[in-house]
Amino acid sequence: MQITPKVKEILSWYEGESPGVKGSLVRLLMHGRLAGSGKLVILPVDQGHEHGPARSFASNPAAYDPHYLYQLALDAGLSGYAAPLGMLEQGADTFAGQLPTILKMNSANSLAAEGADQAVTASVKDALRLGCVGVGFTIYPGSDACYDMMEEIRDIGREAKSHGLISVIWSYPRSGKVSKGAGETALDIVSYAAHMAALLGANIIKVKPPTDKLDLDAAKKVYEAENIDRSTMAARIRHVMQCAFAGKRLVVFSGGEAKDTEGLLNEIRQIRDGGGSGSIIGRNSFRRPKAEALDLLDEVIKIYLNEA
Amino acid sequence: MQITPKVKEILSWYEGESPGVKGSLVRLLMHGRLAGSGKLVILPVDQGHEHGPARSFASNPAAYDPHYLYQLALDAGLSGYAAPLGMLEQGADTFAGQLPTILKMNSANSLAAEGADQAVTASVKDALRLGCVGVGFTIYPGSDACYDMMEEIRDIGREAKSHGLISVIWSYPRSGKVSKGAGETALDIVSYAAHMAALLGANIIKVKPPTDKLDLDAAKKVYEAENIDRSTMAARIRHVMQCAFAGKRLVVFSGGEAKDTEGLLNEIRQIRDGGGSGSIIGRNSFRRPKAEALDLLDEVIKIYLNEA
Amino acid sequence: MQITPKVKEILSWYEGESPGVKGSLVRLLMHGRLAGSGKLVILPVDQGHEHGPARSFASNPAAYDPHYLYQLALDAGLSGYAAPLGMLEQGADTFAGQLPTILKMNSANSLAAEGADQAVTASVKDALRLGCVGVGFTIYPGSDACYDMMEEIRDIGREAKSHGLISVIWSYPRSGKVSKGAGETALDIVSYAAHMAALLGANIIKVKPPTDKLDLDAAKKVYEAENIDRSTMAARIRHVMQCAFAGKRLVVFSGGEAKDTEGLLNEIRQIRDGGGSGSIIGRNSFRRPKAEALDLLDEVIKIYLNEA
Amino acid sequence: MQITPKVKEILSWYEGESPGVKGSLVRLLMHGRLAGSGKLVILPVDQGHEHGPARSFASNPAAYDPHYLYQLALDAGLSGYAAPLGMLEQGADTFAGQLPTILKMNSANSLAAEGADQAVTASVKDALRLGCVGVGFTIYPGSDACYDMMEEIRDIGREAKSHGLISVIWSYPRSGKVSKGAGETALDIVSYAAHMAALLGANIIKVKPPTDKLDLDAAKKVYEAENIDRSTMAARIRHVMQCAFAGKRLVVFSGGEAKDTEGLLNEIRQIRDGGGSGSIIGRNSFRRPKAEALDLLDEVIKIYLNEA
Amino acid sequence: MQITPKVKEILSWYEGESPGVKGSLVRLLMHGRLAGSGKLVILPVDQGHEHGPARSFASNPAAYDPHYLYQLALDAGLSGYAAPLGMLEQGADTFAGQLPTILKMNSANSLAAEGADQAVTASVKDALRLGCVGVGFTIYPGSDACYDMMEEIRDIGREAKSHGLISVIWSYPRSGKVSKGAGETALDIVSYAAHMAALLGANIIKVKPPTDKLDLDAAKKVYEAENIDRSTMAARIRHVMQCAFAGKRLVVFSGGEAKDTEGLLNEIRQIRDGGGSGSIIGRNSFRRPKAEALDLLDEVIKIYLNEA
Repeated sequence: MQITPKVKEILSWYEGESPGVKGSLVRLLMHGRLAGSGKLVILPVDQGHEHGPARSFASNPAAYDPHYLYQLALDAGLSGYAAPLGMLEQGADTFAGQLPTILKMNSANSLAAEGADQAVTASVKDALRLGCVGVGFTIYPGSDACYDMMEEIRDIGREAKSHGLISVIWSYPRSGKVSKGAGETALDIVSYAAHMAALLGANIIKVKPPTDKLDLDAAKKVYEAENIDRSTMAARIRHVMQCAFAGKRLVVFSGGEAKDTEGLLNEIRQIRDGGGSGSIIGRNSFRRPKAEALDLLDEVIKIYLNEA
Repeated sequence: MQITPKVKEILSWYEGESPGVKGSLVRLLMHGRLAGSGKLVILPVDQGHEHGPARSFASNPAAYDPHYLYQLALDAGLSGYAAPLGMLEQGADTFAGQLPTILKMNSANSLAAEGADQAVTASVKDALRLGCVGVGFTIYPGSDACYDMMEEIRDIGREAKSHGLISVIWSYPRSGKVSKGAGETALDIVSYAAHMAALLGANIIKVKPPTDKLDLDAAKKVYEAENIDRSTMAARIRHVMQCAFAGKRLVVFSGGEAKDTEGLLNEIRQIRDGGGSGSIIGRNSFRRPKAEALDLLDEVIKIYLNEA
Repeated sequence: MQITPKVKEILSWYEGESPGVKGSLVRLLMHGRLAGSGKLVILPVDQGHEHGPARSFASNPAAYDPHYLYQLALDAGLSGYAAPLGMLEQGADTFAGQLPTILKMNSANSLAAEGADQAVTASVKDALRLGCVGVGFTIYPGSDACYDMMEEIRDIGREAKSHGLISVIWSYPRSGKVSKGAGETALDIVSYAAHMAALLGANIIKVKPPTDKLDLDAAKKVYEAENIDRSTMAARIRHVMQCAFAGKRLVVFSGGEAKDTEGLLNEIRQIRDGGGSGSIIGRNSFRRPKAEALDLLDEVIKIYLNEA
Repeated sequence: MQITPKVKEILSWYEGESPGVKGSLVRLLMHGRLAGSGKLVILPVDQGHEHGPARSFASNPAAYDPHYLYQLALDAGLSGYAAPLGMLEQGADTFAGQLPTILKMNSANSLAAEGADQAVTASVKDALRLGCVGVGFTIYPGSDACYDMMEEIRDIGREAKSHGLISVIWSYPRSGKVSKGAGETALDIVSYAAHMAALLGANIIKVKPPTDKLDLDAAKKVYEAENIDRSTMAARIRHVMQCAFAGKRLVVFSGGEAKDTEGLLNEIRQIRDGGGSGSIIGRNSFRRPKAEALDLLDEVIKIYLNEA
Repeated sequence: MQITPKVKEILSWYEGESPGVKGSLVRLLMHGRLAGSGKLVILPVDQGHEHGPARSFASNPAAYDPHYLYQLALDAGLSGYAAPLGMLEQGADTFAGQLPTILKMNSANSLAAEGADQAVTASVKDALRLGCVGVGFTIYPGSDACYDMMEEIRDIGREAKSHGLISVIWSYPRSGKVSKGAGETALDIVSYAAHMAALLGANIIKVKPPTDKLDLDAAKKVYEAENIDRSTMAARIRHVMQCAFAGKRLVVFSGGEAKDTEGLLNEIRQIRDGGGSGSIIGRNSFRRPKAEALDLLDEVIKIYLNEA
């Protein structure tokens, strides 16, 4: 398939990157049903490490098998698939070259005490060995570990890019001055998260869909003084995109906790209307029986193709 | 001996690994009385470092001598033997090539204050020099040190595999949000432990046999909502195997604290019935007089051979 | 596009390689009009270094511009494009992700005295930075430099593969015991060249179409005693493929010196009939005006698609 | 299978080596039909690189396929299989763990001009990745390149042993003061070749069966003065073994050029009677149709088992 | 002097070590008046770093001079001398080759706050430069620093052995779960200390003579249940030796705090009767006037020679 003007335009935003990194972006942007549209729908499966396997897969036991997840992403025509080391390895040979993959480099676990941090569980060499297009990394801006995490992604991102891999940052503020719970998805916090990820050199940024809340007092004053529109999800997405270099970074939004289908699709319509680059949908897809998941992902893709 | 279809099938699960790593898996899976069955019974002797020598060997003083332990594993027809550096060295020449060995890379000690951690006491180069088939490493998910431990095994595992050695993870959750004592063997915790080890790239996973308890509230809800069967040990083992990539990772279960023979054998029958890959039996074997230990291990092997 | 059974079969021949290398093979085998057919037509442009620019480009001055060459490969629907460092760099950004590229790592020049050798003019890091799928390297078996060249490709090949790139060897015997001129394309010499490249670990092998001559006396005896069919180009190609691990390596054949179109197409039909993996056509394409070149390449591709 | 007293005795000769190297020796000495006998029959297939593919495989075209060669060694119950990089790779995954393999590290080619040398075409890391028990290396004592070759094997041997791999030296004197042709297999030359390999640290030595000729004048005087028996092949083999540290190194003898079966078997009986450690039989096995090859190898093995 | 059967037997215990390491052991075991007996009396002088110079040397000011200490060890016919970098350097030239020396690699100091740790103050290269037979290292099992210390000795021990030097571990449990003071010399603690040092790969282990106390509750139960004899020092020494790989590691016992001569000699008689490998006597020797020290050491040596 020919590269499209939209993808060409997106590449122009990444002017500082090597042809290798741009080539990896193209591989992602030209794969699946959204190929060429400039939109992305990615399957992420790192919940097993973060929440435990039963909470992740018990509702659809077929998903305990790593091959199922590769196949789901392929059958649904998604743009790519992101997972930790062991999960990618158990399928990397069978599915070699069939699907852009992103190696999730760090992982949280719910057994550890409060302190928000993650272990770096893979290396850039692993990503190359497994044929990935990029590496993914979570940061927790606000947490005590956030400076260390940022320095880890600095090194990993630099090594990845020097080998032609893209860098994806999951930017999830928590603790520190961020109010527990609602604060983590407040508009000022999410847009700040997206901006920091862009500043850290992320090629693709993953954040949560923002609510209309504002969490930091200092921010609140500005949002109100400047009348920043946060009345609809579309407006809020538009603001987040603006905070990602005036929309010149790809920002994908998580589906968040499993929710009802209509709610999810409405949210995605607003992500599209607000100019978001796409969705990264884990639990809402792999926790459903495959037929249901394929139906849902078909709807999601249609939304991004402006067919629904 | 010819490699069996069962071993061939097991190798197919490790599709991401080099021929060297697969060859080491074959050496382990084709040794001893269980050769070719796809089942493993391994003798681990790292309790001396963790609990002290008298608690480990005083009941059967012959076991103070490292040669005794090699010979026990050989005479019993076990699949392999795992121990720390000094203990393997004191016998590695005498028993060279006679028994697959696994170098235990880190060791806890009971003198240190609470914080669960271990010292890395050997290197991958040692494992090669000693002719081992792999390296073993303990992680304590939940502990303050768990992120560091995961990063240590990431580097050790990668170095080991690049030299054709297999990676074995002892995954033992403790502290953090894990309830002290009973929580450590709760079903949700053990299956989570197995899943994390798989995600970290372990070729073989060691966990404790799970009880029917559930420890984390968030997990409890899912286990109950999804009616995950935990009524028998066999059902619980089946769940743990499912959490290890739908049974596509070798998972061996510890014998746990010394217990009466019949209790132990019943547990092992259920491990077998639940599809577990085998047992790793330390204290229950080397703390008994040799004749008793051989009788016990003979029974265990017969169970895995479906002869008892 | 879905990976085809033919491509799956080809991957199975490369069983020793990582998923990363297999993924790069897929990128090449799934690109262009021959995608999925298991056949390859590649544009190589390293003649400028070897023969000087005027001898290479004066007949079609548009080809002095590196962008022209990228575009030619794209417009013709070729599988990929191979060139030295500077030539790939001048276009790598514009064409990022649009075409599989192979970085030619060493280059001869016609100014140096007779001794057949080449300079290594690029690095594996360059190939990664430029987003290539692989590296290419020429060896001159027979030359005084041949042992050094083989040791260079050993190191380059190993580094490339460990980063997920494929290794392509241009195997061109010359000097030493090889008769100058006709000896270099004798059947025994070409098939030996292909076999050595395979033994050196090449993923893709480039040789010249063999004539029915035999050059080495020792070989001649065997070819005659064993009645090895060399009566047609197809028979000779079949023999060369056999010498490449019973056809389990991809072997592409150069177009050789510029020749008349019909002669070239007939040769390519025989390469196809003999089971060759495809063609690597430089001078015969870029030295013609673009329209003629596209017509020619269209014919070539149709032949490999069994449409002509 | 239990390690035998004979193998134990052989290990005692390698007292300077690590348990890892001894373990690899055990793997070789305990494999196949000769397991435990202290004798070795190894299949080497590096003739394709040295003489070209047709001269090597045309008489039995099935042997063009690397899998055929692995399978031949397995079916014949040989001790192991030695081949260059590409040939081992094409089969290493399929046959992982089934057969001890030796990576041939350097390769000659018949296209190069007279100067006897070889290219080092693989690395110790490759041997580990492919799960080999050792590395093999040819030296040409006498050639202009011999000092370089000895220094190459010094480094390769040291790296191999430090990773638990054995070192095998093909010691083939040629050129320099060695008379071309007959001189290369003269008794003084072959025994000198074996001795040098032992001095270079070889664990296993490969030489050609010696004739009763003496090549160097200085040696001739001593052989005659000391009445060294060279009247029969058995006597000559006994002398060669004596020159290999009084028989404390494993020395295997090549089958040499393809010859008639009875001649070959008689020679092997004498190798056995002279105390040789075994044979390394390439062309005489893989150039015959498989059934014939299996019959021949069966006879050879019976000889070493003292059954024929 | 001929190596004795006793020393031969001791070397057989170190089967995993290189000839270089065994050669260093022989140098130590064949020096001084105890040469060949399998017993060792070593002079250690690291108290200056740990307690300050006046506490160490003021009672016998001659000992401020490093040459005095070398000469004392020589004149007394001791097996060897162990000290930190500067102290060995001041004398290494004068006494080159006259006395086996052990470079003490880490040192505590009494100025630092409580946290038990030591600084690594020398390198293996220093030990080679100074002609030492080995390196010494203190660990404090139980302390917060114990994991780090164990990882330091892992690296130092491996480097030392790979250069043919022996590794000596001073294993001194303190803090953590070890009761301050009496706990540090309790039988369960000392035997555990010896066992850990053995597992860490120590060639020679230094511990304190144990009292009949038991410190850890879990250990206490076992000692009582198994009726482990701790009634006499000899019985306790016997138990410690058992915990050092059934007596297959050399364990030497410190003299501990300065005490009266008869008490010290009685303790040493019991160390001998319990099968201990010898003594390492610092303060009790160098703090006395030389004549007294020589008398004392003469008595000690006679005990180990069974002459007193």
